[in-house]
Amino acid sequence: MKVSLLSSTPDPVRLIADAARITHGKTQSHQSDRYYLDLLYQIGHFSVFEHVSFTFFIEDISRACSHQLVRFRVGVSFTQRSQRYTNEENFTYTIPPTIQKNEAANSLFLQKMTDLQQSYIDLIRMGIPKEDARFLLPNAANTSLFMTMNYRELIHAMELRLCMKSQWEIRHLFWRIRSLIQHTYPELALYLYPKCFHEGFCREKKPCKLLPVFLKKKINR
Amino acid sequence: MKVSLLSSTPDPVRLIADAARITHGKTQSHQSDRYYLDLLYQIGHFSVFEHVSFTFFIEDISRACSHQLVRFRVGVSFTQRSQRYTNEENFTYTIPPTIQKNEAANSLFLQKMTDLQQSYIDLIRMGIPKEDARFLLPNAANTSLFMTMNYRELIHAMELRLCMKSQWEIRHLFWRIRSLIQHTYPELALYLYPKCFHEGFCREKKPCKLLPVFLKKKINR
Amino acid sequence: MKVSLLSSTPDPVRLIADAARITHGKTQSHQSDRYYLDLLYQIGHFSVFEHVSFTFFIEDISRACSHQLVRFRVGVSFTQRSQRYTNEENFTYTIPPTIQKNEAANSLFLQKMTDLQQSYIDLIRMGIPKEDARFLLPNAANTSLFMTMNYRELIHAMELRLCMKSQWEIRHLFWRIRSLIQHTYPELALYLYPKCFHEGFCREKKPCKLLPVFLKKKINR
Amino acid sequence: MKVSLLSSTPDPVRLIADAARITHGKTQSHQSDRYYLDLLYQIGHFSVFEHVSFTFFIEDISRACSHQLVRFRVGVSFTQRSQRYTNEENFTYTIPPTIQKNEAANSLFLQKMTDLQQSYIDLIRMGIPKEDARFLLPNAANTSLFMTMNYRELIHAMELRLCMKSQWEIRHLFWRIRSLIQHTYPELALYLYPKCFHEGFCREKKPCKLLPVFLKKKINR
Repeated sequence: MKVSLLSSTPDPVRLIADAARITHGKTQSHQSDRYYLDLLYQIGHFSVFEHVSFTFFIEDISRACSHQLVRFRVGVSFTQRSQRYTNEENFTYTIPPTIQKNEAANSLFLQKMTDLQQSYIDLIRMGIPKEDARFLLPNAANTSLFMTMNYRELIHAMELRLCMKSQWEIRHLFWRIRSLIQHTYPELALYLYPKCFHEGFCREKKPCKLLPVFLKKKINR
Repeated sequence: MKVSLLSSTPDPVRLIADAARITHGKTQSHQSDRYYLDLLYQIGHFSVFEHVSFTFFIEDISRACSHQLVRFRVGVSFTQRSQRYTNEENFTYTIPPTIQKNEAANSLFLQKMTDLQQSYIDLIRMGIPKEDARFLLPNAANTSLFMTMNYRELIHAMELRLCMKSQWEIRHLFWRIRSLIQHTYPELALYLYPKCFHEGFCREKKPCKLLPVFLKKKINR
Repeated sequence: MKVSLLSSTPDPVRLIADAARITHGKTQSHQSDRYYLDLLYQIGHFSVFEHVSFTFFIEDISRACSHQLVRFRVGVSFTQRSQRYTNEENFTYTIPPTIQKNEAANSLFLQKMTDLQQSYIDLIRMGIPKEDARFLLPNAANTSLFMTMNYRELIHAMELRLCMKSQWEIRHLFWRIRSLIQHTYPELALYLYPKCFHEGFCREKKPCKLLPVFLKKKINR
Repeated sequence: MKVSLLSSTPDPVRLIADAARITHGKTQSHQSDRYYLDLLYQIGHFSVFEHVSFTFFIEDISRACSHQLVRFRVGVSFTQRSQRYTNEENFTYTIPPTIQKNEAANSLFLQKMTDLQQSYIDLIRMGIPKEDARFLLPNAANTSLFMTMNYRELIHAMELRLCMKSQWEIRHLFWRIRSLIQHTYPELALYLYPKCFHEGFCREKKPCKLLPVFLKKKINR
């Protein structure tokens, strides 16, 4: 998995603050941009966050992960590499950590991947079109995509997918995305946390024990 | 593939016509419900069609197909069987027609499916969780889902997916859906056609030759 | 203001439960439909609620209210009476309670409404088209609309608009809508409350004191 | 009315072309960025256009216009000046051209605006809250808002609102927006036209006669 931030709305904190100012008919105020960011979050005026978007290039996640990812529907756009049009003879794949750590499982898994690659090549040689030969490809096969998500949806997606109970690959993906935001716009990363961090409690039956760690960060920010 | 119409907005043509009447401040008129349906379509006032929805139970389509299907985002809702939580030891699968017709390819394909079923069982026995063992499962593996789509989005989806150049499995799916609508609400099926039918010309480089057939139906309706 | 429930998805609780069952690959289970409704709410699996929709006929709310109402964008559709096409000579209007209770203000307000009605008629007689004469009409002028909203968005809208700090007219509207749901599908009304009811605390600077009342109901349900 | 382009996705044509390249698994190609822009438009692969967004500051449009504008729901975000929180004693307003050109009507209109301003002030002095005094304000009263719209929705909105049969104020607004795009990203303006321009024919009962002018431009581009 590789994630890069291709593009983002210039000067995002300023833009959000200016939009907030306009609700009261002002184009400037003595309050800082950062003040408005926090105020909007506290009072739940999330729609203002929609003016800011980020475009990520996400490479080499499994199709299992991408199938789940594209379920986000609002405030988000995807353009994905198509298995119908690309030759997947040399497809790369993602190995789940539980399999990597299990020698027998890992050996079986690698063997099957090699096997499927050969079978895919065989089907193509037998005259089967790419869009049909791909029916053989495993969920593990990697894909790449462009994802543009606005900041409101990003806050929402992080609430769900940073949770330790979330599926591991999509969780890794959103932690990567969070790192990129943290690096580029640290002020915006302050609102990107799992749901428990914002609510102050965990809704899961078997909590992960990380909530106190998160909350400590919250106090220190 | 099996598709059934589980639920739909009661008396849909009446509801659409009544909504159209309200734009002019009326609750009744001497024009028929059918008249408004046609008028709205002709003038492109599609938002009125959103008041009517259909819920389908779609069984045994491939994950290749479902990945494409869930890309519809507006006016549509999906609830899908999860490979994370269900045991897929006896997964069924979809065989593309091009493979079925090719004896060598078909034989190879069936052998690989059996092989993957056994390997999935092996991974589970090795202690790999279901959500990770599924990385081995092929795009051909079947899934099932509930899909609720409003009539506006249905018109739009049909324009794209009934086209003969569309991927065969999703095309079959939407023809099945169209049959169900045709059977239950024939008046609503009158607007469910590929884009060419509505536009009167084909945008594809290599047209499919069915347009004259569609247009003849149009004249006779 | 008058609100009626024109149409709704038949057998909504059953449909939601059946959709929930399918996520685990089942078409039936020993758990009750009501059990799934509650489970989905608790674990936050809200997308399943989108399969159920309601269509309301909302009559005689102010344009001030409708302008705010149509800001809901997801899982909702509106068809509104147009001031461009209808003759508004006899427009009715909504008087805010604070004005009704203030004799001088009420008298001034009524006088201005009569005045604007006459001026609107004058403009029409001078040959001004309806779509331009309406520029004179006040925010108080009533409108009517069809609104179809799915159950997920309804839960969300109620969280925001049932709050005592919400604007009074849209709050009245959503309490009316809640009464209709309560009457028709009491099980579905159980999740229609202001945000504080679900969160257990109030986010407003000056709380309304109704939270304890809500919470008592929660315990008794 | 005043419209300014506050912010936009940097290097938009490049971003769209790169997203198009990724569907075939490429990160570069010998085809120009401009080539992909045109290809995507021709084959109707509009979702790729969603990666690019524009934020406009729209000042002094009537509330009649803003009520219609905020009906756009997909790929668009609004933050509007609230009449609930701002003092509107000195509200400005928009006069429809048909009224401006008619001396008697214009005189009546101006008098009513002055009258309503005074009555609004009176209500405030009588202790009526701003959010209720605004019920007196006319549709003509001006508002301001931030609007962020992605390029796909912009193409769609232009198809509807640049049409000469569209309401005049929102049509003026979108022509202003188009001018800003034309000035900043002329390549993107090439796809911003009324629907007739793209379809080659007019759907209106009484056509406006501008289609030949549009089509001539099309040939020359």
